[in-house]
Amino acid sequence: MAKNVFYAQSGGVTAVINASACGLIEAARANKQFGKVYAGKNGILGALKEELIDTSKESKSAISGLRYTPSGAFGSCRYKLQSPAQNQAEYQRLIDVFKAHKIGYFFYNGGGDSQDTANKVSQFSQAVNYPITCIGVPKTVDNDLPLTDCCPGFGSVAKYVAVSTREAGLDVASMSESSTKVFVLEVMGRHAGWIAAAAGLAKDEKNDPPHLILFPEVAFDKKKFLAKVAATVKRVGFCVIVASEGAQYADGSFVADAGLKDAFGHTQLGGVAPMLVDMIKTTHGYKCHWAVADYLQRAARHIASATDVEQAYAMGKAALELAAAGKNAVMPTIVRAKTKTYRWSVGEAPLAKVANVEKKLPRGYITADGYGITNKGRQYLAPLIVGEDYPPYKNGLPQYVKLKNILVEKKLTRFRL
Amino acid sequence: MAKNVFYAQSGGVTAVINASACGLIEAARANKQFGKVYAGKNGILGALKEELIDTSKESKSAISGLRYTPSGAFGSCRYKLQSPAQNQAEYQRLIDVFKAHKIGYFFYNGGGDSQDTANKVSQFSQAVNYPITCIGVPKTVDNDLPLTDCCPGFGSVAKYVAVSTREAGLDVASMSESSTKVFVLEVMGRHAGWIAAAAGLAKDEKNDPPHLILFPEVAFDKKKFLAKVAATVKRVGFCVIVASEGAQYADGSFVADAGLKDAFGHTQLGGVAPMLVDMIKTTHGYKCHWAVADYLQRAARHIASATDVEQAYAMGKAALELAAAGKNAVMPTIVRAKTKTYRWSVGEAPLAKVANVEKKLPRGYITADGYGITNKGRQYLAPLIVGEDYPPYKNGLPQYVKLKNILVEKKLTRFRL
Repeated sequence: MAKNVFYAQSGGVTAVINASACGLIEAARANKQFGKVYAGKNGILGALKEELIDTSKESKSAISGLRYTPSGAFGSCRYKLQSPAQNQAEYQRLIDVFKAHKIGYFFYNGGGDSQDTANKVSQFSQAVNYPITCIGVPKTVDNDLPLTDCCPGFGSVAKYVAVSTREAGLDVASMSESSTKVFVLEVMGRHAGWIAAAAGLAKDEKNDPPHLILFPEVAFDKKKFLAKVAATVKRVGFCVIVASEGAQYADGSFVADAGLKDAFGHTQLGGVAPMLVDMIKTTHGYKCHWAVADYLQRAARHIASATDVEQAYAMGKAALELAAAGKNAVMPTIVRAKTKTYRWSVGEAPLAKVANVEKKLPRGYITADGYGITNKGRQYLAPLIVGEDYPPYKNGLPQYVKLKNILVEKKLTRFRL
Repeated sequence: MAKNVFYAQSGGVTAVINASACGLIEAARANKQFGKVYAGKNGILGALKEELIDTSKESKSAISGLRYTPSGAFGSCRYKLQSPAQNQAEYQRLIDVFKAHKIGYFFYNGGGDSQDTANKVSQFSQAVNYPITCIGVPKTVDNDLPLTDCCPGFGSVAKYVAVSTREAGLDVASMSESSTKVFVLEVMGRHAGWIAAAAGLAKDEKNDPPHLILFPEVAFDKKKFLAKVAATVKRVGFCVIVASEGAQYADGSFVADAGLKDAFGHTQLGGVAPMLVDMIKTTHGYKCHWAVADYLQRAARHIASATDVEQAYAMGKAALELAAAGKNAVMPTIVRAKTKTYRWSVGEAPLAKVANVEKKLPRGYITADGYGITNKGRQYLAPLIVGEDYPPYKNGLPQYVKLKNILVEKKLTRFRL
């Protein structure tokens, strides 16, 4: 009898992670080699707690609606399994739950940590003689997975940031004569500047926004930065800055951690944007505005990149196909063709090589002065935001699907996490 | 010979103020009663400085592209003329410039202050025997103009906020089991909660986000608020809060002004969102995230309301038609029909009655507990966000028009502002 499938979403969600779920579930429904697809309620926690969502209870249209529904439809979690050596009980529990529910396939949709976990589950399951086919499905707005040209989720954040920078830039431009001279947009990226770099796509001509991008990869030099801001205001009339939340000084301390205290002496939540604005106001006296996109950027399915949606769907589908072909401990990847016009195909990479490797923003993508992106960077980023893929609307609002998320009956006793 | 037209954009720009310019210029081009349309470079400052943009130099396609281009294509400004009694020289300067460039019509596209100024220019021009036809064109994301059912610019911010709340809400929902429990989105609205209220449209069912809306109209009660947050997290698993930047305590002090000091003792820029998050973290210990939409919300033409775009265009067109019909010191308005399905038509209001009256968010639109919108509020707001009106895209980015903005040759000496 066909083994069932377990699928889990992991870590920070994206505008298109459900598109991967959609690709995977639709492919599984069409292939008799696979039984039911169970999804972990809140990711891997669902497996540990034996909270398995029976996706077979969802209609065809609900599943196809996942393609245009942002965030994690089954719930995700920030929960990293330790190694089997450190916490064998958790791995054993996974195997117990998989056994109890006749699960033979584990698809883990996440970033580097998740690929590592999937790899370990594969190894452990073989060691205990209940071999599970473990396939990773790449996902992360951070775009930091190796061996894949890009990561599903990134293209849509990139598009959101580029579009928002262009729009806010026009706003500042039209007001700068008598009002706001400086605008700072804070975007995600604690360790890598991929997302901030995408703002550079908004710039067509020299004086277009963004004028300054702050990357975590480039040490923040306050004096140089403030001089650049003043020079830009003088030259262009205004200055638009896009800052990674992870912008940091040469000593590794975050710009956002400025030691702010409230009236009671509590350390105050930072935010790199208000910190930069404070510096600029204090030094130059310009009227400033700032925005922090936070979750809006990674949830913004309404402005998702069609390329990203297509790739996310393809990764889900390809993951299932890899399993069907008897592969194990691999992850489908996006392979960029060496053609002049952008083309991509699906490849694969062993989980062992994906796990625990962080792909950094190449220095060659950042301009020599450290405040912009090079043509090389632009060539890499530009195709990833191409195409619009609008969700359906009703009464002016996107009609994202809500699943029933019916749990499978439990067969085991409670597991203490 | 046909008199020329002067058009100026005023105050904070919107996603659709250029749609009004488009409606006005297209109508003027089609009507031989009007000469050229000159636009003020940076609003009324352009008139005072005799920096007049000759819109006749712009192609038909550039002008029609204004319909989908956000912010102020000719530049706007924050510059309020005093009364003629206080500063007669400025009014005289306007008349001098109008005379020098054969301008017989003044269209002022802005909020309450601008309508007041347009009215005063009309009166002054009559007093000095160079009567100018002065017509207001309504614009403000604040939605606070009287005598019009709504203000162009508001519907698109409202849609942005409702869509973003829905999207970020899904993100928090899917992560809340093991990660972020509270999300705060700060939106515009220093004096009125119209924009925050629009977030309420994202809620279909009782437990949908937003769970709490903070209005400037409702005194902020920290204890009650914190209790509500905890109760929501307990009931729903997470809590999404949308806060007006103008949220304030009973004594009128802003929640955002929490007396934060940096390391040098400088008062730190607030932001109501980080303040609320600090309270919640300190009291309840929940993991929180926050976003500040700032200019992104009012520049977001990519998610503009089609209703808003249509109304903005219609207001520009109607303003010209009012002038053509010999009206003076009036503003076209949006009149909501008393039908079950939303219908609107163009009306008019005398500037004297529009000026200096602020339309408040009715208390009847806010729920009894002060944290949500009533059905009455929903009925008012819902039609304003209906319809999508996407700009054209190229390479994944909206292709907003850039005008040539060629200035008319100056005829007068410099005026000292």
